[in-house]
Amino acid sequence: MTGEDAISVVDRPPRAVAVVGVGVIGRSWLRVFTRAGCETRAWDPNADALTQAVSWHSEELQRDNSTGGTLRRCDSLEEALDGVEYVQENGPESLAQKQRIYAALDRVAARDTILASSTSAIDMSEIARGLAGEWRCVVAHPVNPPHVVPVVEVLGGQNTRPAVVQQTSAFMRAVGQKPVVLNTFVPGFLLNRLQVALLREAISLVERGVADAQAIDAVVQHGLGLRWALLGPFGVANTNADGGVREYLQRFSKSLELLMNDLGDTPRLDAALIERIGQQTDANNAAPLPEIRRWRDRMVQEVVWLKDENPQP
Amino acid sequence: MTGEDAISVVDRPPRAVAVVGVGVIGRSWLRVFTRAGCETRAWDPNADALTQAVSWHSEELQRDNSTGGTLRRCDSLEEALDGVEYVQENGPESLAQKQRIYAALDRVAARDTILASSTSAIDMSEIARGLAGEWRCVVAHPVNPPHVVPVVEVLGGQNTRPAVVQQTSAFMRAVGQKPVVLNTFVPGFLLNRLQVALLREAISLVERGVADAQAIDAVVQHGLGLRWALLGPFGVANTNADGGVREYLQRFSKSLELLMNDLGDTPRLDAALIERIGQQTDANNAAPLPEIRRWRDRMVQEVVWLKDENPQP
Repeated sequence: MTGEDAISVVDRPPRAVAVVGVGVIGRSWLRVFTRAGCETRAWDPNADALTQAVSWHSEELQRDNSTGGTLRRCDSLEEALDGVEYVQENGPESLAQKQRIYAALDRVAARDTILASSTSAIDMSEIARGLAGEWRCVVAHPVNPPHVVPVVEVLGGQNTRPAVVQQTSAFMRAVGQKPVVLNTFVPGFLLNRLQVALLREAISLVERGVADAQAIDAVVQHGLGLRWALLGPFGVANTNADGGVREYLQRFSKSLELLMNDLGDTPRLDAALIERIGQQTDANNAAPLPEIRRWRDRMVQEVVWLKDENPQP
Repeated sequence: MTGEDAISVVDRPPRAVAVVGVGVIGRSWLRVFTRAGCETRAWDPNADALTQAVSWHSEELQRDNSTGGTLRRCDSLEEALDGVEYVQENGPESLAQKQRIYAALDRVAARDTILASSTSAIDMSEIARGLAGEWRCVVAHPVNPPHVVPVVEVLGGQNTRPAVVQQTSAFMRAVGQKPVVLNTFVPGFLLNRLQVALLREAISLVERGVADAQAIDAVVQHGLGLRWALLGPFGVANTNADGGVREYLQRFSKSLELLMNDLGDTPRLDAALIERIGQQTDANNAAPLPEIRRWRDRMVQEVVWLKDENPQP
């Protein structure tokens, strides 16, 4: 029997999952999984980090009323992985460290367990190269913090079995996340490429003195972003012409092309430009950063709920 | 006495405003102004368009309960402009037609009246060139529909007086919009440049087969867009490092630069690619377009209210 046939994770929360590495991302995954009813194991080589994460999790549990699964603090990787169907790894963003972690995960985990990484940048082909269980290693990259922002980018390495990508995606959906599947590795995946595409033009406009950072943020906060949060870029294009996205792209192809070719090049991020952006950004973001982040997370949650209650027709 | 000194529009709704051209954008402006308490005049060279806009406005008035100013249907440009402090022009997006319209506006309007255009693309320097009242001509570009999406891009032409830009901006704020000021004309202004920056990379990713349009929309709908709608691109960067936007840009400058340089070139929008995008977009947007648009506008309104009730700290 091959591992592929034996994988049991389907479109339901797995009974038991392990979160390996419980910093800011890992602890948030704990909440995703317990909320969805999983028996959730937490392990981290740093015992203090583990204590902090478990304590943070208790506070979050009190804040949102959802009952759910259990959380177990584990003293070893072996204990954490014993009998789990899915592992979410959140180690440091270094290829060498990920390789070491994956060698351990592949050695310790039961042979059908999916080994998913939160990496935002590293190719799973590199991380899992040569492991016996290379076929079950996959990227499941969240946005920080995943218990608030639902999207997860799912992609395999060269030797990841397609069934593992599908099952990871189904599992993410089952625990309430929004998985998106990439067909192939690209630097930055989708999320950081799209983020950087917007940021490049935004910085370029500041660099050239067209407008300040505050104005550019406002165009997105009070205009573009409102629609993107509902429909995404193609969905918005679809509503921008009576004939939908096809008419939009056909009718405006010439002006779109002209404008695309007019976009700014990669700006040089020297100290003076960074300080200029810093001062202009401060104007809208005067409060202490932790306070802004709490507001951001609370508001993202509100918008997600609003969309859940009012699904797109 | 110069016209500059005489402009009376300050940070309050002007008593009387005129909307010239009442298609989809113009009729929405009617609602912005009446809602804010203005005595609002509507005029369009097409009497049918005028009838439709007035009827649409009545329906909108019943939908949202806000009391406000009055709407007057006018039979001539002279009647519409008589005694108004501000004109919002929404003619066809053609330089020649805008020039004809502005010649008429400048001839008919009282000398202190601001003449603002909803153009999304044309340089006011070109539209108003040579007019006696060139100094009072300004762009006030909304997002469709402005009575739902609050952002308005404000910029002058070469000979627009700075006071006119400031007063237009103050007026927009007074009627409940979110004005952003551009220091100079650039093709696409801020809004379409930023929109196209995202779209270029999105299309390029589809073209290269990295992911389908549905996945790219999902990354924005359930991830990036949620934050952008709250904080804008610089505001988001500010929350992405404990030291704020300065630390984010300094610490990640190398990887940002690499990723920016790796972004896709302008894709060739041929029929096959457009059809591919069309099919992939259909998957998420099966309902009739008018229904999706109604949902979009209702939801944008909900998110705007949510933000108004929970302002950023």
